[in-house]
Amino acid sequence: MSEPRSSAGGDDAALAIICGGGSLPFALADAAARRGRRVVLFALRGWADPERVAAYPHYWSWMGQLGRFMRIATREGCREVVFIGSVGRPSLWQIRPDLRVLRMLPRIIRLFRGGDDHLQSGVGRIFEEHGFRLLGPQDVAPELLMPRGPIGACVPNKRDRADISRGLALLQATSPFDIGQAVVVADNQVLAVEGPEGTDQTLARVAQLRHNGRIRTPAGVGVLVKAAKLGQDHRIDLPSIGPHTVDGAQAAALAGIAVVAESTVVAEPERIAAAADRANIFVVGVNADGTVP
Amino acid sequence: MSEPRSSAGGDDAALAIICGGGSLPFALADAAARRGRRVVLFALRGWADPERVAAYPHYWSWMGQLGRFMRIATREGCREVVFIGSVGRPSLWQIRPDLRVLRMLPRIIRLFRGGDDHLQSGVGRIFEEHGFRLLGPQDVAPELLMPRGPIGACVPNKRDRADISRGLALLQATSPFDIGQAVVVADNQVLAVEGPEGTDQTLARVAQLRHNGRIRTPAGVGVLVKAAKLGQDHRIDLPSIGPHTVDGAQAAALAGIAVVAESTVVAEPERIAAAADRANIFVVGVNADGTVP
Repeated sequence: MSEPRSSAGGDDAALAIICGGGSLPFALADAAARRGRRVVLFALRGWADPERVAAYPHYWSWMGQLGRFMRIATREGCREVVFIGSVGRPSLWQIRPDLRVLRMLPRIIRLFRGGDDHLQSGVGRIFEEHGFRLLGPQDVAPELLMPRGPIGACVPNKRDRADISRGLALLQATSPFDIGQAVVVADNQVLAVEGPEGTDQTLARVAQLRHNGRIRTPAGVGVLVKAAKLGQDHRIDLPSIGPHTVDGAQAAALAGIAVVAESTVVAEPERIAAAADRANIFVVGVNADGTVP
Repeated sequence: MSEPRSSAGGDDAALAIICGGGSLPFALADAAARRGRRVVLFALRGWADPERVAAYPHYWSWMGQLGRFMRIATREGCREVVFIGSVGRPSLWQIRPDLRVLRMLPRIIRLFRGGDDHLQSGVGRIFEEHGFRLLGPQDVAPELLMPRGPIGACVPNKRDRADISRGLALLQATSPFDIGQAVVVADNQVLAVEGPEGTDQTLARVAQLRHNGRIRTPAGVGVLVKAAKLGQDHRIDLPSIGPHTVDGAQAAALAGIAVVAESTVVAEPERIAAAADRANIFVVGVNADGTVP
């Protein structure tokens, strides 16, 4: 785990949270607020949830409004910034670059030519060069990281543990190609490798394959395995799961979900545990080598 | 390339063709008939095309009717057999095992627990143990194999060649995991890795990602790359393309299709070339190391 990094102002300084979709940004805002920290949300148009944004001081922006972000964040006394929540893979149109971003356009186009990793670590560097400290959610609120072992009552059996180990080995093999962070393995057969469609759509595909009779393993067999890519910038895009991931795994008739402990962000762990118990599936934090604590 | 293997009867003996879906079984039957060879089709229920099966002497069977196949094939004077055409990944139900197959059930269940490779090489061994010589389509009709270089008028540009090379490297990395034989790479980004859904569905997914704005490369960029898995039994499941593959690549707005020359089966190359020229996409046979002849 990386150590928390704080600005001169330490935990008393305001924290800028650039909010994508899903419930993670608010889990982080709540966790920071519980620590007595002032929070300012920069809600990304088209991604952040307007109802939940309203609970905190906030500004709506397009992703590319870097100049505007810097002016407002400086005025609000924020020197530390966290980028959290899903943004899929934005098109240049959805980014709506402002003047500051336009000046960097050749560099940004180069970033866009690479895979996700490339794009994300480049974004990190840009913030740092402009005097902001980019933190990962885990630096602000380590309690958002997946613990080792199961959340909820179900645990993986021997076959599930073999599927987890195979899934992690596959993610390691595809990691240099900068693809997704998730695979589905059922009784040793790889059912899906996540691409730009994201985890929810990958699970929907498995549900469809089952429906069409293209999967020979019975319902209740198979594991969604997620892991950060090797060398991925942990401040920007740790894999994450939420209650909807449990819903997707249930629809795909999987036995459970395995993520690498301490390098996966978990939104609303209590709701995840409740949903997993209702669905009779396991959700487990495993070691990076695929062993189950 | 493997050398043609012939039984004592040589090319004069009848050839049993076990027919899955698509047009490949009939391209092979036509090619064998052109060589003056008698052909007997064993059409798999649920997969083979009834209209085209009718052009040859044929018997309908379930995949698992091995005893029946052996009785009829022996009576018809067939000692050589080719298994060709798509069968997806059949469920045990679709196989409808007969007594001969039931006796081998523990062994077959073990085969089913592995990936495609495992299953297919096991099926090959079972035929051989029962006195049939299992051939690949290329042993009977080498003209069905993809040649080196382009079919049709379009050729890959420099960016396409880089995508082809990255795609083949990815297929090599995933090969030990016994997944699909196809990936889609666009301007260095991996858009899809084929799973049990097959190539047509993988291309449909890319078309959908484009439609949803999840792909940042413009239309006309990206390559479908197909290659046999390492160590795959070339008699059973060489990758293949047909005119419908060109349709799928066009719907996904790709620049073209690259397959490994001499280890990919091509149904109806003239129709493929015509479709590719109409769609303005390339179809090219490349070297196994990803270089384009």
